[in-house]
Amino acid sequence: MSEERALPVAVDAMGGDHAPAAIVQGAVDAAREGVPVVLVGPEPAVREELARNRDAANLPVAVRHASEVVGMGDHPGQAMRRKKDNSIRVCFELVKGGAACGMVSAGNSGAVMAGAIFVLGRLPGVERPAIISELPALKGRPLLLDMGANVECRPVHLVQFALMGEVYARRVLGVERPRVAVLSNGEEDSKGNDLTRAVAAALRRSTIDFRGYCEGRDLLTGDFDVIVTDGFTGNVALKTMEGTARVFVDLIRGALRSSAAAKLGGLLARRALTAMKKRIDWREIGAAPLVGVAGVGFITHGRSDALAIRNAVRRVRAAADARATEEIGAAAACAEALLAPAAVAAETRAEEPSQTASFKA
Amino acid sequence: MSEERALPVAVDAMGGDHAPAAIVQGAVDAAREGVPVVLVGPEPAVREELARNRDAANLPVAVRHASEVVGMGDHPGQAMRRKKDNSIRVCFELVKGGAACGMVSAGNSGAVMAGAIFVLGRLPGVERPAIISELPALKGRPLLLDMGANVECRPVHLVQFALMGEVYARRVLGVERPRVAVLSNGEEDSKGNDLTRAVAAALRRSTIDFRGYCEGRDLLTGDFDVIVTDGFTGNVALKTMEGTARVFVDLIRGALRSSAAAKLGGLLARRALTAMKKRIDWREIGAAPLVGVAGVGFITHGRSDALAIRNAVRRVRAAADARATEEIGAAAACAEALLAPAAVAAETRAEEPSQTASFKA
Repeated sequence: MSEERALPVAVDAMGGDHAPAAIVQGAVDAAREGVPVVLVGPEPAVREELARNRDAANLPVAVRHASEVVGMGDHPGQAMRRKKDNSIRVCFELVKGGAACGMVSAGNSGAVMAGAIFVLGRLPGVERPAIISELPALKGRPLLLDMGANVECRPVHLVQFALMGEVYARRVLGVERPRVAVLSNGEEDSKGNDLTRAVAAALRRSTIDFRGYCEGRDLLTGDFDVIVTDGFTGNVALKTMEGTARVFVDLIRGALRSSAAAKLGGLLARRALTAMKKRIDWREIGAAPLVGVAGVGFITHGRSDALAIRNAVRRVRAAADARATEEIGAAAACAEALLAPAAVAAETRAEEPSQTASFKA
Repeated sequence: MSEERALPVAVDAMGGDHAPAAIVQGAVDAAREGVPVVLVGPEPAVREELARNRDAANLPVAVRHASEVVGMGDHPGQAMRRKKDNSIRVCFELVKGGAACGMVSAGNSGAVMAGAIFVLGRLPGVERPAIISELPALKGRPLLLDMGANVECRPVHLVQFALMGEVYARRVLGVERPRVAVLSNGEEDSKGNDLTRAVAAALRRSTIDFRGYCEGRDLLTGDFDVIVTDGFTGNVALKTMEGTARVFVDLIRGALRSSAAAKLGGLLARRALTAMKKRIDWREIGAAPLVGVAGVGFITHGRSDALAIRNAVRRVRAAADARATEEIGAAAACAEALLAPAAVAAETRAEEPSQTASFKA
């Protein structure tokens, strides 16, 4: 354990809008708190940023040269194959080779997922790795997956997301008995589409605490710890949250200016409103872990500043310390067995047309 | 035109949480403003509520007896077939027979859609009627369809939603050249799933002002006038908006209580906040029109109060005055022609795996 604890977090110094300055600064800040880091990128550029911190030489900060950078416009798969010395790929190679406990990048998120699959590989039995988003709920931090990597999903994928997310919530976040739900268009079992019905039937056969369907309005209540959906719907839900929050802040600001009394209130409350905007904005939450690959990797938002990077580095460290990767793979491997009987049930149910079923509310 | 203008709006007196009291009151309020109404429900109960308004006898308010009521738990299709004298069905029969210009119900929304299809029928060429939701955007009132009636959709359905919604925005809401978009998981053409790609390809061949993909964060900006999606995703997006708004109000209230200065601000601004909550809550927006059926029908939220009903009655009247039904049907009938070449393109594109395509951002 002590040797493992000394392993650094690999940080892609070249990813994100504010790279390398904000990335290097965030990594240095994490190192100051005692988390060893290895910065990955073109060494001269990284050293130049490092030099801004006078105490850098005394901190657990290493630099690993990587000559190439993946751009936001690069095709993820091609970038991994053609730019062999790119900073994302080198981060994953450090993890794979046991020289880092995990990695984080604020770069091209498709390239990070591609790099994870390319270098670390999928865990045995996992069909599709997923990206987890932690939601800014009133209570707790529900996990939503997949948040966008897998646009077209079959039942086995969502069942695996549920089983992997459950292990992650339990082992990494310390939720004793995570409550798992499938995102649907209504709470009743008669709702949903062919995909959600097959997934729910399978999860009812599992040993996890499966609570059935939840709705869009349940994402932020904290009543569920793990919520699974396909990457298309997950992306729409996350961006709808973001857009609603933004409009809401604008409307409230307008309302607070609309009368003399409210105007005074607005002046006094402005700081509180700004803090709330940050809280609800999913892009501020920080790092999104990958699950289903053979190692620890996190994607952070392209807008990440030094604070976001420092927090992300901490979270990589915590995820690595939890040593949950193997258990995540073992859980995912149960999906096929859970689905076998469910497939028969889904076929039977499919005889009832979807439109009729949706009429029940 | 003058004869048509005299036609009343049929109001289902028995639908919703506050029926019949709030429904009758809302209809009477609309009648006071000069919109003739016919209240449909068990006559004694309706007359009893009507009697609370001393001026009712002088208003353009009629009562049409209907002995049965569809419950929220009733199966929509069965209710329409078995309860032949239910208030929803009778409303649609008045529309069909030319005795009402349109109808509105706050009852079982599945039953309203089923009644519309059962009594009015689909317009020729329309595969699936849809429910339109008007979104509480910063500018304008974007239309989102389908908001829940059609959970499993094929490309032809979404193309028809786009064409029908475009006519509705233009003819009923007076938007000169509606900007139409398909809800997706990213703006780039490379995003989306098989369904959205086929739909976008078809709409690019149309004469409407098609703007390609939009994202969840664009729903409330007012940058698009008509946004189409399947009923599953539409439902998730609407309920995510609702849930986000609710959490946001709670968070802001908490923040406004968190310091002495903010507390004072909060007291002063409370009314403004409550007004904003109502504005963003999609359930407060009021009535959702059906499109694709041979007549005018609106669904209002089950929680509708008298004000919501009065507003809904006005909107039925406006939709009927626009006489757009025929044009909606004609527009929908073009969908197949637009899809024929698109189907070939979609097959070609399908050779590229979806996961890879999603990596581009």
